[in-house]
Amino acid sequence: MARKALKTFEPVPLAQVDIKGGFWGERLEVNRKATLPIQYEQCKKTGRFDAWKLDWKPGQPKPHIFWDSDAGKWLEAVAYSLAKHPDKSLEKKADWLIDLIAKAQRKDGYLNIFFTAVEPENRWKNLRDMHELYCAGHLIEGAVAYYQATGKRKLLDVMMRYADYIGKVFGRGKGQKRGYPGHPELELALVKLYKVTGADKYLKLAKYFIDERGRKPFYFQIEAEKRGDKRKTNPQYHQAHEPVRKQKEALGHSVRAMYLYCGMADVAAETGDRELLAACKRLWRSVVDRRMYIIGSIGSTQRGEQFTFDYDLPNEEAYAETCAAIGLVFWSQRMMQIDRDGEYADVMELALYNGVLAGVSLDGRKFYYANRLAVHPKAPPFALNTFPATRQEWFGCACCPPNIARLLASLGEYVYSRSANEIRVHLFANSGADIDVGGQKVSIGQQTGYPWKDKVVLKVVPEKAAKFTVSVRIPAWCRSAQMKVNGKAVDLKKVVMRGYARIVREWRKGDRIELVLPMPAERVQANPSVRQDVGRVALMRGPLVYCVEEVDNGRDLNAIELSASPAIRVRQDAELGVPVITARGQRTTQARWEGRLYRMMAKEVRKAVTVKAVPYFVWANRKVGEMLVWIRQGR
Amino acid sequence: MARKALKTFEPVPLAQVDIKGGFWGERLEVNRKATLPIQYEQCKKTGRFDAWKLDWKPGQPKPHIFWDSDAGKWLEAVAYSLAKHPDKSLEKKADWLIDLIAKAQRKDGYLNIFFTAVEPENRWKNLRDMHELYCAGHLIEGAVAYYQATGKRKLLDVMMRYADYIGKVFGRGKGQKRGYPGHPELELALVKLYKVTGADKYLKLAKYFIDERGRKPFYFQIEAEKRGDKRKTNPQYHQAHEPVRKQKEALGHSVRAMYLYCGMADVAAETGDRELLAACKRLWRSVVDRRMYIIGSIGSTQRGEQFTFDYDLPNEEAYAETCAAIGLVFWSQRMMQIDRDGEYADVMELALYNGVLAGVSLDGRKFYYANRLAVHPKAPPFALNTFPATRQEWFGCACCPPNIARLLASLGEYVYSRSANEIRVHLFANSGADIDVGGQKVSIGQQTGYPWKDKVVLKVVPEKAAKFTVSVRIPAWCRSAQMKVNGKAVDLKKVVMRGYARIVREWRKGDRIELVLPMPAERVQANPSVRQDVGRVALMRGPLVYCVEEVDNGRDLNAIELSASPAIRVRQDAELGVPVITARGQRTTQARWEGRLYRMMAKEVRKAVTVKAVPYFVWANRKVGEMLVWIRQGR
Repeated sequence: MARKALKTFEPVPLAQVDIKGGFWGERLEVNRKATLPIQYEQCKKTGRFDAWKLDWKPGQPKPHIFWDSDAGKWLEAVAYSLAKHPDKSLEKKADWLIDLIAKAQRKDGYLNIFFTAVEPENRWKNLRDMHELYCAGHLIEGAVAYYQATGKRKLLDVMMRYADYIGKVFGRGKGQKRGYPGHPELELALVKLYKVTGADKYLKLAKYFIDERGRKPFYFQIEAEKRGDKRKTNPQYHQAHEPVRKQKEALGHSVRAMYLYCGMADVAAETGDRELLAACKRLWRSVVDRRMYIIGSIGSTQRGEQFTFDYDLPNEEAYAETCAAIGLVFWSQRMMQIDRDGEYADVMELALYNGVLAGVSLDGRKFYYANRLAVHPKAPPFALNTFPATRQEWFGCACCPPNIARLLASLGEYVYSRSANEIRVHLFANSGADIDVGGQKVSIGQQTGYPWKDKVVLKVVPEKAAKFTVSVRIPAWCRSAQMKVNGKAVDLKKVVMRGYARIVREWRKGDRIELVLPMPAERVQANPSVRQDVGRVALMRGPLVYCVEEVDNGRDLNAIELSASPAIRVRQDAELGVPVITARGQRTTQARWEGRLYRMMAKEVRKAVTVKAVPYFVWANRKVGEMLVWIRQGR
Repeated sequence: MARKALKTFEPVPLAQVDIKGGFWGERLEVNRKATLPIQYEQCKKTGRFDAWKLDWKPGQPKPHIFWDSDAGKWLEAVAYSLAKHPDKSLEKKADWLIDLIAKAQRKDGYLNIFFTAVEPENRWKNLRDMHELYCAGHLIEGAVAYYQATGKRKLLDVMMRYADYIGKVFGRGKGQKRGYPGHPELELALVKLYKVTGADKYLKLAKYFIDERGRKPFYFQIEAEKRGDKRKTNPQYHQAHEPVRKQKEALGHSVRAMYLYCGMADVAAETGDRELLAACKRLWRSVVDRRMYIIGSIGSTQRGEQFTFDYDLPNEEAYAETCAAIGLVFWSQRMMQIDRDGEYADVMELALYNGVLAGVSLDGRKFYYANRLAVHPKAPPFALNTFPATRQEWFGCACCPPNIARLLASLGEYVYSRSANEIRVHLFANSGADIDVGGQKVSIGQQTGYPWKDKVVLKVVPEKAAKFTVSVRIPAWCRSAQMKVNGKAVDLKKVVMRGYARIVREWRKGDRIELVLPMPAERVQANPSVRQDVGRVALMRGPLVYCVEEVDNGRDLNAIELSASPAIRVRQDAELGVPVITARGQRTTQARWEGRLYRMMAKEVRKAVTVKAVPYFVWANRKVGEMLVWIRQGR
């Protein structure tokens, strides 16, 4: 491309990072041993994989238009798992699926279950709704990951041929369609394909899709008219209401938005496009300052799974799709390589520990599509079988479970970044990594009980002594972080820049950074423009949001109010095996109500209670019942 | 019928009551001059009336399955209007429509637009969903009212023939279908037909429908299977989950529930069925003690326009359909004749002044289908075009506007009841009535500025002096009512029984009852199990619920909290021309927030504000903006 790439960090790749034990070690093992096999079983059982045989016959149930993406995401998750945990049987299953996929490819390179087996006459006729380019993106991500994990090129070659074909069909040349994905995803996938193959054409195609989006006349409207579809397109839903580099507000379908913003950040980084980066930064502010739940989730309404408007964060009616929080993790990770601010990793961590992890049960076997911040078990279910009080085994539209699986399986890639002379530590996780810094291998060993305990020990082991920078994130929630290097206190005021403590020195074998991140339980308020949360507080400890559940606190959680200045304690819970928060509060009772629904105002009869809160991601793993994140705060 | 009717009061009929001037006089004039003509225009414009010509052709838009009911309700409203305000031109329009309807009747008596003109092959095949019996009910109500107002029998005869035919088709005899209405309404209409014709068969048929409902095997399931419809019937939605006399909880579609309960009360009263009456009383408690909004509206969710569960009264997501509040008025009026407790009239009054009146704009030209108790104007619209912040001109499913029109046009019937030796005054409205008590005419003159002013003067003018009882409702909201008879104070403690002050004496021309109902503005609390309202209060004055609007109080209404013990004042508002409530409060400001969405808890910066509240029925008649009924209450 014409312009040079931006100078960015790059994630230390999965192959070079080992997460072992500790909080994430346990979660990753559950993911590998429970969630991944479930995903395979469900895809087999529901015909998602066998649909690649293209043997659908009229009268049979139709394969869904985005089953292809389930295969792509499963292969991607398998690849990450194989990279760390070789497993011949699993690899055999993946190879079987890849063979099916390869056979399904048309001569011209086209590859799609629905539009090959069911409606071949409708290929490329409805980019807006039919997910063809989205499916291509997920298959490319799977292909890249599988190649990187196993060295096997079969699916990669298939997907390169498909990408080449897509590059012929779409573009600004004569006879080409000026379309772009109705559901973004292909853009970021093409950048991955570019990076793994070095072929500039894939980056150019990604850039084309990014730049074409939102131009007038609207492609989606034109293709709709050609189909005789008279429904009006809502371009905002697809982030296609204006050219992306002009966009200022996070709008429309929240997962689409996240995947688009990832592609924008990728293209900006690789092409040195500062205007595009500026758009990403503006959109970041829109999301993080005005449209994000405290659990790091986004998308306030199930009607279209969309963003709504500034400060609109309903709790019981929250949509907060698991995939959208995962998308926010993806985007944060990209932004933190380019813009180098700790805020990106703070948000990434918030989403990971709360909005993402709550999407899967502790045993890895059940899933939330939508994540409420307040639940009454009798409340009627929303769309998509998302019953509020219990996770489900699977979904007809099963985007979330495999998305969780692939993210957790690749979590190693989110812990460290590197540049020619710097290592960055973003996440605190028991782990080791071999990192290339200025041509030599530096081993990092991280020991921590985070997020339950406040201490992090980092051992820095260069092959030979060398001067470089080790930057360690100091989370914004921590008011009194302390650091020692080789036992000597570091004045963090002097070394913290944009959220990272930057230690520049000649590092030698045996060097040791000790970080303490004191994490008292805190009450957090929402901006008074968030009408749903005024007069309430959320309890947090470190990166974890807590919530109250009926099983611990009885029914009618809203009848409880925290005391004005409650003693807040943290204690290990024997049943749950995690620290819980307790605080003094009062509960308004039914005394003197005599069964009435309304009465003239009278003094409430209240009784003292001890409020018990558990980490949000732990909720709904015991008895079905009410749940509440934002608790009423007394004065 | 075998059993004797219960001894009940009966409403003093419309023809004998004149509402003139005052609060209701004004509303009724708007109804007659604006709402009724709009209803005619809309029905003409949308083809609802001309569809009776049965000239629908394939390819044209289909007449809706309940257009018949719009005609029925319009005729009913016209009849009530003609009863009080003769209008040759209006009567001519009604006669034209009645001629069309009469011509549309089939030889066998059947009468329905859709199943005559569009799908004659599907007659009676889907009672559950297709509203055939519902439409019949509304046409009967229209026919009865038109006959009573004009003496013209044409439509009444048509509907008797139709009812006779329905009585042949449905029942427990050989060859009869054991069905019942999917949407109740016919039951109460048949009792009206029985009363006006004296023909016992109509009461029997109503009783059959009431008793058959909910029996196993479920008729709706049987007919669905016959149609090859595999969707599972939800009998609860139709109040058909168990025999009605066993039902304990108000469940399912709220309008269906109200119309059914009206029919149950009617049949109970006319047949002396105390078991059925007991079911009504149980269901009443379910509604009024646990499932009714403070505005007298019911049906908490738009998903199926249904009741949900005890104490579930969401404000922003309230459905609270205007028709359901109207249905509650109908049911209250029936219950207060039979069970003689002031609570029925209290609830009727609450629904009338709040949930019903808010359904129409002050100018009578725009309507709410759903009635929220909290609104943000940017919140996404729900189903049925019910944008939360503005009333609509009409609806595709236009049940509410004509329902408002017919209720207001007949409001005279809700003011007084009579028995052989008693007159009951339920509503306070400037009015006069001629009432038959023990064979002689007693004239009642009522003068009042209610609900704005607290004084009511009743003049009792018997033809000649006679001993009988005049009972005047003492609303439960009033803590310090005072009454004088001919200037002499009455000790209300001694004479109030079940909500009515019962004055038994020999009444003479010139006798005068003076009632004072002091109505300070009050703060009202909801039961602490109503999770949406804990820590909040609603402002009321007399029967009127008040609310705060953005136009008076600025944005972010939830950032406002009433002071712990606010001085609450009532003053006449020059712009609105009604009394408004003002109270001291504090508003949490954006000071020290610096644009953040979340922060560690810190002292809020608040400023003193004067909260201004307007009657709920007045809201959304000025600028579009936020609205809130339940205001945060400081301590």
